[in-house]
Amino acid sequence: MTTWHLTNVRPMGGAAATVSITGGRIAAIAPAAPPAGEPSEDGRGMLLLPGFVEGHTHLDKTTIHLPDWLVNAVGPRIEDKIDTEREWRARTGHDAGAASLALARAFLAAGTTRIRSHVDVDTVGGTRHVARVLETREAMRGLQEIQIVAFPQSGILARQGTERLLDAALAMGADIVGGLDPCAIERDPVRHLDIVFGLAERHGKPVDIHLHEPGTMGAFSLDLILERTRALGMEGKVVVSHAFCLGDIAERERDALLARMAQLGVAIATTAPASRPVPPVAACRAAGVTIFGGNDGIRDTWTPYGSPDMLERAMLIGLRNNFRRDDEVALAFDCVSAAGAQGCGFSDHGLLPGARADLVLVEARTLAEAVVARPVRRLVVSAGRVVARDGVLSA
Amino acid sequence: MTTWHLTNVRPMGGAAATVSITGGRIAAIAPAAPPAGEPSEDGRGMLLLPGFVEGHTHLDKTTIHLPDWLVNAVGPRIEDKIDTEREWRARTGHDAGAASLALARAFLAAGTTRIRSHVDVDTVGGTRHVARVLETREAMRGLQEIQIVAFPQSGILARQGTERLLDAALAMGADIVGGLDPCAIERDPVRHLDIVFGLAERHGKPVDIHLHEPGTMGAFSLDLILERTRALGMEGKVVVSHAFCLGDIAERERDALLARMAQLGVAIATTAPASRPVPPVAACRAAGVTIFGGNDGIRDTWTPYGSPDMLERAMLIGLRNNFRRDDEVALAFDCVSAAGAQGCGFSDHGLLPGARADLVLVEARTLAEAVVARPVRRLVVSAGRVVARDGVLSA
Ligand SMILES: [Zn+2]
Ligand SMILES: [Zn+2]
Repeated sequence: MTTWHLTNVRPMGGAAATVSITGGRIAAIAPAAPPAGEPSEDGRGMLLLPGFVEGHTHLDKTTIHLPDWLVNAVGPRIEDKIDTEREWRARTGHDAGAASLALARAFLAAGTTRIRSHVDVDTVGGTRHVARVLETREAMRGLQEIQIVAFPQSGILARQGTERLLDAALAMGADIVGGLDPCAIERDPVRHLDIVFGLAERHGKPVDIHLHEPGTMGAFSLDLILERTRALGMEGKVVVSHAFCLGDIAERERDALLARMAQLGVAIATTAPASRPVPPVAACRAAGVTIFGGNDGIRDTWTPYGSPDMLERAMLIGLRNNFRRDDEVALAFDCVSAAGAQGCGFSDHGLLPGARADLVLVEARTLAEAVVARPVRRLVVSAGRVVARDGVLSA
Repeated sequence: MTTWHLTNVRPMGGAAATVSITGGRIAAIAPAAPPAGEPSEDGRGMLLLPGFVEGHTHLDKTTIHLPDWLVNAVGPRIEDKIDTEREWRARTGHDAGAASLALARAFLAAGTTRIRSHVDVDTVGGTRHVARVLETREAMRGLQEIQIVAFPQSGILARQGTERLLDAALAMGADIVGGLDPCAIERDPVRHLDIVFGLAERHGKPVDIHLHEPGTMGAFSLDLILERTRALGMEGKVVVSHAFCLGDIAERERDALLARMAQLGVAIATTAPASRPVPPVAACRAAGVTIFGGNDGIRDTWTPYGSPDMLERAMLIGLRNNFRRDDEVALAFDCVSAAGAQGCGFSDHGLLPGARADLVLVEARTLAEAVVARPVRRLVVSAGRVVARDGVLSA
């Protein structure tokens, strides 16, 4: 097993240290200089961060690989966006393989070594997107871990055959069962959730449900999700994405739901959008609920925004939660690192002996500065190998 | 007068054109190639934008010029922030000249050629910050236009002598009279506003008032501001900064205030913060009210966030207002360009013959892409001179 040393780095902005890497893992983080004769690289006093975690994106939807800018003229309702996307995709023959690979590589160049991607499964495209993102996962193996959620973007109930397609996607290798707004989109929360949790049980796989529903409707759907989590013994295996309702129900009701979520190990993925109520990160953490960050879609038919830079997402989480103190900004960073790994179940994450050596070096004086200034990634190491320098992937 | 040509550029993402520049102004924008023999530079098909406008910042407060990162451990109330800043400044001997010059230069390198800066006037520092930012304005003359608001950050009424200091600051060359939360901070809205508008009348200068007050309290203060604007014939000479109340009062009440603002030419400066209600850009524009963008403070004792990149502010305005369509993203850009010039009264702005030749070139296919991707500024021209390339100021 090769051993090498990354010297003179400041883990999370702390005192200078040497990281020793053996067999793709961190062997030690120590103040001492490395033994003479072993290979090493000088970190030049830069700030050392663990590899970032993108906890909620849609690798298959992006248009960043296309030569032309996609002009967005879509209507305001979620249904407008779903329909527009399906039509655009059918018309252009969108290549989910090229799209997902380009975006996964961009994430890696910017220091993200773990990604949870929801991937569309519907009666038009079938399981094609899942097949293509599975190829991207293979292409990135050893460089980046990608989890695939089989995601019924167009609903399960409205389109006959979607359940069977989700079943097939899970059999093909998708890791997680997705779901979508059981009341607002599906209009039959019990049937929808019974299908989602039924698939999870059958395949022995976790669940991650898009829940955009606001207010008490969303709280009702969340209540049903928690009920099923407990009934099926799926503690620690359920994520609710967005959970916007936790941002606009009464605080007492919110805290009661958070307490149940903490008890059941149900985590929240947040994009921290600026334009609508969101689960407050501090309140979730105080209740013992894991909350982590993601972009959602990046430059797709839904939105022109988003970036493969998870430090930018941390900044947006910080801004949304009015995190100004350095200790608060550190929580925003946690959402795109340790909490993301915890919530998604990526193992061996972090800056500690035994963890996978996923490392990012940036020129910043403190962790807070890294978040607000988002400096270029001078070095990205994945599983012990240097994979990018100065924001550019190695060959 | 020197004439030169910037060829093969796409104004606002449109068809390729040549911009001809004479005597610091745009002489023509035309599809034709320039006359042979006259100096020209090839814009290589890049997107051409007008110089950006920062409509609300605090050049004197920043710490970006300091060697050490400023750790933020400040309490949550606005009074905590005001007190912390005054104490920190007294303790460190903060150099508002070096701070403002460093930040002004960073703005210029990123394409911002016009800035409105509020500058602190208080009984501890007196008019020292104004004196130092006036030096920065002199240093930047011909490169960047800087407006100075004499800003009573610590209040006027609570600290005897502040009115006299504001008077002195205006006599020294400050352009605009500032004000601050007439009810919530000053606790006597009529006396506060009578002083602010009295100074404006005496000096024949416009007004720009920080109004953080939420809800009906803020609406009451705004009502008093509009009353005085009309009574003193100050139509077109008043800006309300933040105006958060317009984001959380009843729509009917909001629209009534917007109608009065439109009639009186009272503009709004917004930072579009993600964590609190804000005036909605679309509703303001629909009512005929000019609304424009700014950072507020940048990496100071108040906040670690902010950036001299006004494309980033446009992105944040877009995210806050849920502007996804290309035509909506263009409104976000307008907030940091034409609307900023209109609201602050910077003349001769824009991509049209006769305007000051303040130009920015970026690699982007469309205006929306320039906002969401915020590419490096390949070329910045101010008053007809190339002042920066690739994000770095020319010598
Ligand atoms: Zn999503
Ligand atoms: Zn301000």
